[in-house]
Amino acid sequence: MNINKYQHTGQNTIVLAEEPTKIKDLYADKNDYEVQLQKLHQQMDELQSMMYAHNRYAMLIIFQAMDASGKDSTIKAVFAGVNPCGVRVHSFKRPSETELDHDFMWRTTACLPERGTIGIFNRSYYEEVLVVKVHPNILTDVQKLPIALTQNQEKVWQQRYEDIANFEQYLHRNGTKVLKFFLNVSKKEQANRLIERIEDPEKNWKFEEQDLKERALWPQYQAAYQDVINQTSTQNAPWYVIPADDKKNMRLIIAEIIVKQLQALDMAYPLPNPERQAALKQLISTLE
Amino acid sequence: MNINKYQHTGQNTIVLAEEPTKIKDLYADKNDYEVQLQKLHQQMDELQSMMYAHNRYAMLIIFQAMDASGKDSTIKAVFAGVNPCGVRVHSFKRPSETELDHDFMWRTTACLPERGTIGIFNRSYYEEVLVVKVHPNILTDVQKLPIALTQNQEKVWQQRYEDIANFEQYLHRNGTKVLKFFLNVSKKEQANRLIERIEDPEKNWKFEEQDLKERALWPQYQAAYQDVINQTSTQNAPWYVIPADDKKNMRLIIAEIIVKQLQALDMAYPLPNPERQAALKQLISTLE
Repeated sequence: MNINKYQHTGQNTIVLAEEPTKIKDLYADKNDYEVQLQKLHQQMDELQSMMYAHNRYAMLIIFQAMDASGKDSTIKAVFAGVNPCGVRVHSFKRPSETELDHDFMWRTTACLPERGTIGIFNRSYYEEVLVVKVHPNILTDVQKLPIALTQNQEKVWQQRYEDIANFEQYLHRNGTKVLKFFLNVSKKEQANRLIERIEDPEKNWKFEEQDLKERALWPQYQAAYQDVINQTSTQNAPWYVIPADDKKNMRLIIAEIIVKQLQALDMAYPLPNPERQAALKQLISTLE
Repeated sequence: MNINKYQHTGQNTIVLAEEPTKIKDLYADKNDYEVQLQKLHQQMDELQSMMYAHNRYAMLIIFQAMDASGKDSTIKAVFAGVNPCGVRVHSFKRPSETELDHDFMWRTTACLPERGTIGIFNRSYYEEVLVVKVHPNILTDVQKLPIALTQNQEKVWQQRYEDIANFEQYLHRNGTKVLKFFLNVSKKEQANRLIERIEDPEKNWKFEEQDLKERALWPQYQAAYQDVINQTSTQNAPWYVIPADDKKNMRLIIAEIIVKQLQALDMAYPLPNPERQAALKQLISTLE
């Protein structure tokens, strides 16, 4: 698989409407899909173990998408095979009063992954240039930014793109590899999944009337996502735009990208020097 | 008092050895000093109350200096008159294992002030380009940064200056006013104060042998402070180099700078609109 097809590093500008939401199947049948995914799980688990022992790098994986695009189920499917000691998922919903009383990256910073681990953000500080951009009254009425600083809204979004890119550059310099996934679902497929949530009583709990109001703002959201991807894609913190209409394809692509990015980290199990090895041998004798 | 004399915004490069550690007294006698300081306390307290009601700005005040320059006693003296609900001091000592497992601004970010409050950092993320720069083995041996990222040490410091300046710019854009104080004590006055700590049994607890080892690195620390001030002074996050050989002068200058910077914030008590005022009057009748 050529993962570069989905990767954006800021070299070229993208038009989101031209990015595929559907591709031809990467698996022959369900069984083949499961075999492929299991192999990727195993590789990911081994690489994460090495990252833990090496203890110098961390990985931050961000998932952003429209409602019903499969964020939760994808996170579950992709990371189910990895040692849970080395993976932690944080889901960011409506911010609390205390969180709103701080700068917009404060609450996510507290949840950044430690060296040796993978941190997963289900939504993230990118909501600050997505839902907030589509509903800009949040800036002054909910986030209570100083009025003088929000007069020129276009400037606010530009500053936020810049601040986010600076922050991700800083994370890279301190050993955290940042990967960002946009799950690119079509408007039609979103409708199918929302209908399923309404019709299937077991899925009712996932449905909120608010989802339909946000769906009506589809063009505004697509424009906001396109801007985010064009303004914050960098070599060290790329965006991946993943076709999301078929969940199995999506999971295989995402798992493969993560494996390849873990493989690209310059890491190894720490090897003791000869003195240390001699000292360890001595210890064996005390145990015998 | 002309506070601009002590303020650095990045317009000009400074030579630290040329900045005064001593100035002529700003007070006639002890009583006059106390009267002046009390007036500043009162102004600071009123301004902080307004900031709390306005609830859009925060203020972050950073103190950095050599040992025995009077950081603790200055914080105590300057903020003693302000409502403790609106002020919180965080002292940053040797980082914990968990803190070391994160990027270097992680632990301080958790302690940033909420809107409406003043946060005081007694030492800060600036230690990362001060003590760490003087003892660079900390980068690889203690902070465990990926080896490849620390090969070129000069680049590491330049990146850290840039990352810190970017971060403070982001804080400004989100409503946090940042002030940074370097307490500029002379090497001779430091010696006097360390001798006092050794001779006075009640001050022994503040003395550590390590202080003398760091004192021997005086030129390296002065050079590191000079670089920090030249590289991270900006219009929105200025450094103030405060003559620190006389503690009363130092406290008066610092308190005055904080009052002037609070006055410069565009804030006021929120005024209710006529409908709200009418509704409030109605409520009085239910209480009567």
